[in-house]
Amino acid sequence: MPPISTKQIVIIGGGFAGISLIKRMAGKAGFRVTLVDRNNYSFFPPLLYQIATGFLQVSNISYPFRKFIRKKANIRFHMGEFLKLIPSENIVVLSTGQLKYDYLVFATGVSTNYFGLDNVKKYAMPMKNVHDALELRNHLLQQVEMAATVIDELEKKKLLTIVIAGGGPTGVEISGMLADMGKYILPKDYPEIRGSYGANIYLVNSADRVLKPMSKKSQDDTLKALSEMGVQVMLNMQVKDYIRDTVIFSNGETIETKTLIWAAGVIGSVYDGIPVESYGSGKRLIVNEYNEIKGLNSVFAIGDVCLQNTEAKFPIGHPQLAQVAIQQGRNLACNIQFRERGKKLRPFSYFDKGSMAIIGRNRAVVDLPGNKTHFKGFIAWFIWLFVHLLTLVTYSNRVATLYNWIVAYFTRDQSLRMIIRPLKNK
Amino acid sequence: MPPISTKQIVIIGGGFAGISLIKRMAGKAGFRVTLVDRNNYSFFPPLLYQIATGFLQVSNISYPFRKFIRKKANIRFHMGEFLKLIPSENIVVLSTGQLKYDYLVFATGVSTNYFGLDNVKKYAMPMKNVHDALELRNHLLQQVEMAATVIDELEKKKLLTIVIAGGGPTGVEISGMLADMGKYILPKDYPEIRGSYGANIYLVNSADRVLKPMSKKSQDDTLKALSEMGVQVMLNMQVKDYIRDTVIFSNGETIETKTLIWAAGVIGSVYDGIPVESYGSGKRLIVNEYNEIKGLNSVFAIGDVCLQNTEAKFPIGHPQLAQVAIQQGRNLACNIQFRERGKKLRPFSYFDKGSMAIIGRNRAVVDLPGNKTHFKGFIAWFIWLFVHLLTLVTYSNRVATLYNWIVAYFTRDQSLRMIIRPLKNK
Repeated sequence: MPPISTKQIVIIGGGFAGISLIKRMAGKAGFRVTLVDRNNYSFFPPLLYQIATGFLQVSNISYPFRKFIRKKANIRFHMGEFLKLIPSENIVVLSTGQLKYDYLVFATGVSTNYFGLDNVKKYAMPMKNVHDALELRNHLLQQVEMAATVIDELEKKKLLTIVIAGGGPTGVEISGMLADMGKYILPKDYPEIRGSYGANIYLVNSADRVLKPMSKKSQDDTLKALSEMGVQVMLNMQVKDYIRDTVIFSNGETIETKTLIWAAGVIGSVYDGIPVESYGSGKRLIVNEYNEIKGLNSVFAIGDVCLQNTEAKFPIGHPQLAQVAIQQGRNLACNIQFRERGKKLRPFSYFDKGSMAIIGRNRAVVDLPGNKTHFKGFIAWFIWLFVHLLTLVTYSNRVATLYNWIVAYFTRDQSLRMIIRPLKNK
Repeated sequence: MPPISTKQIVIIGGGFAGISLIKRMAGKAGFRVTLVDRNNYSFFPPLLYQIATGFLQVSNISYPFRKFIRKKANIRFHMGEFLKLIPSENIVVLSTGQLKYDYLVFATGVSTNYFGLDNVKKYAMPMKNVHDALELRNHLLQQVEMAATVIDELEKKKLLTIVIAGGGPTGVEISGMLADMGKYILPKDYPEIRGSYGANIYLVNSADRVLKPMSKKSQDDTLKALSEMGVQVMLNMQVKDYIRDTVIFSNGETIETKTLIWAAGVIGSVYDGIPVESYGSGKRLIVNEYNEIKGLNSVFAIGDVCLQNTEAKFPIGHPQLAQVAIQQGRNLACNIQFRERGKKLRPFSYFDKGSMAIIGRNRAVVDLPGNKTHFKGFIAWFIWLFVHLLTLVTYSNRVATLYNWIVAYFTRDQSLRMIIRPLKNK
């Protein structure tokens, strides 16, 4: 049993933010940390699109929490879903029991925002988690197989047309990858549809450019690269509905397709027990400079789910990036310890390390911080690869992932093409 | 276009039998082969239990058909499900169109037999295909996670108790593997349930021994090994029902468990267009010595789905083994060519190459043919490993699988532990 004075920290969510906090609380005397997550594994969202396109396996980008905390004696894992917060009793109620806390941290992230479009929610394919990515992989493969046997030409076109909503990194990465697949990979194995795949890939974005937080140069290079690859980019355009295999746009235009990939936005959740006034725009939880949630004591939020407008540079909150989440987790770890020792707390300040996006098989754009140095093409692609490889949790992940990438790169092949679904549902 | 005289062979099902036939028809002038399967990949059933226990990935034991036939010009793949045979017109109707054939081959295999037990069908976990194995893996992991947080001791026991029905290779292999996991793997990561996992694994079989087609020696060694590993074997016993987490046995005994793994038997399917008199016991299709289905012309069945009692040694049909399927596919390939050349057909004759089963991490039993030479323990385990590795379809499968096995063996670890399910269903 821990001594009476041990403080209980409960962290809900094991993404970038939660894991960053845990890493810095591991082995710290006087603290016991419980990580709560509805999944039993952590995953690496920047590589989800590689799962969806069949280049990486789930195990390349994910890692079981229990293996991660195995040697961290003061950390434990509790698989369960958040149900309710009872702040007056310092209790959090989960689907699998309840936990008492001295410090509670919401690192719950955000989920797909369908902007109230019911048909889109029902029929489009989101890209927020591992299950989404596997579903999308199955779906994409199934459309190609069906296109290979169907006789009706209009039906075939519907099966091979792909609309991607959202010009952020996910939308850009997946549209580039699909264009590459249509050019280099599918023709080898699908003689029946040679030439027709990849011809109808549309990337739709509501803004007048893609990759909003990146530099103008990167945005322009990305648009140029995508159009060279055959992706048809539609800017200043919104999806309004998706009925009977038809995407309807804000200007009244329509595209017939069996595949609408939805990466157009994210939104927070409403948590039972958190006061209404604690929510900001996009249902993000408003926090102060120490990441404490407005209106609550000893309850914090870090990562995508929080909205912190205490830095002059970020009046509407930080961009929802991995680096912000990691740095907030790290800062909170310090502040929790400072609190216990009665030391002065450190307000959060974001250090921009730059950002990057990959476009297809060997193109990328990279912005370095400060003077906005900008790379593109193969060098950028190589930097992207290197940085993402290093960020994977474990050594064995890295080796396997590197191996798969090298094979895929040189063979222009993609071997993870099993459509795995319950047969009864087919 | 193929010349007029080209014969169309349609094969339904790409398992051991179908793939064996295809391999021998590839490149043969005068034949065009269409492989029909409802999946887009072939998989290796003997290693399914390694998927279910998290030691191998799906991609280690499966392979996309299109990649397999890529360089075989006279073979094509058609993803679809069999709906109906119209023998009078030589047409087979699929969910995705219809095909005309000169030779039609059913290599459809068999599916799980629930013996009319509705509750078992509804709540038990089958182990016949890749999807089943992934579902079982998710289920097993989820029970352990739930056991780690549950407070009620009776509920915890239910979560950690596993009943496996069926004393064939699948049942033996999975019960041994689960016992090993309980001993070596789970205690490391689940301090909450240390000691209680693996204590309640039951293997139930209706016969008075396990591994029916193997030698008495192998059967006895297997029973001994399983009991040393802590598996409780219940012979001469049948599952009668599975209600409210309770397995009810033929003698009235009951076991409370959340996990009933069903590997108790297989059965064929009824195919629209095949006459009633063509079905034998277990709904297998009765074939003559050339594998032609009784009552039909130019329609064949090979592998598990067929019942061939033309060999004196096998009056009730061959055992449903990979080797029988492979050899029948090979023999049919010859006979189809002999027919076209007007040569004398060759009746099928099974050549027993021996059989083997693995029990846990480093024990196995192997029977060699003829004088029934018998190996057990580590040597048998090594033979098992070697033979199965060689049988995997491709070189890259083999390397990756060997790598995973070596890692799992030396680290006594299992890293494929992600519970991947749609969150909304939870």
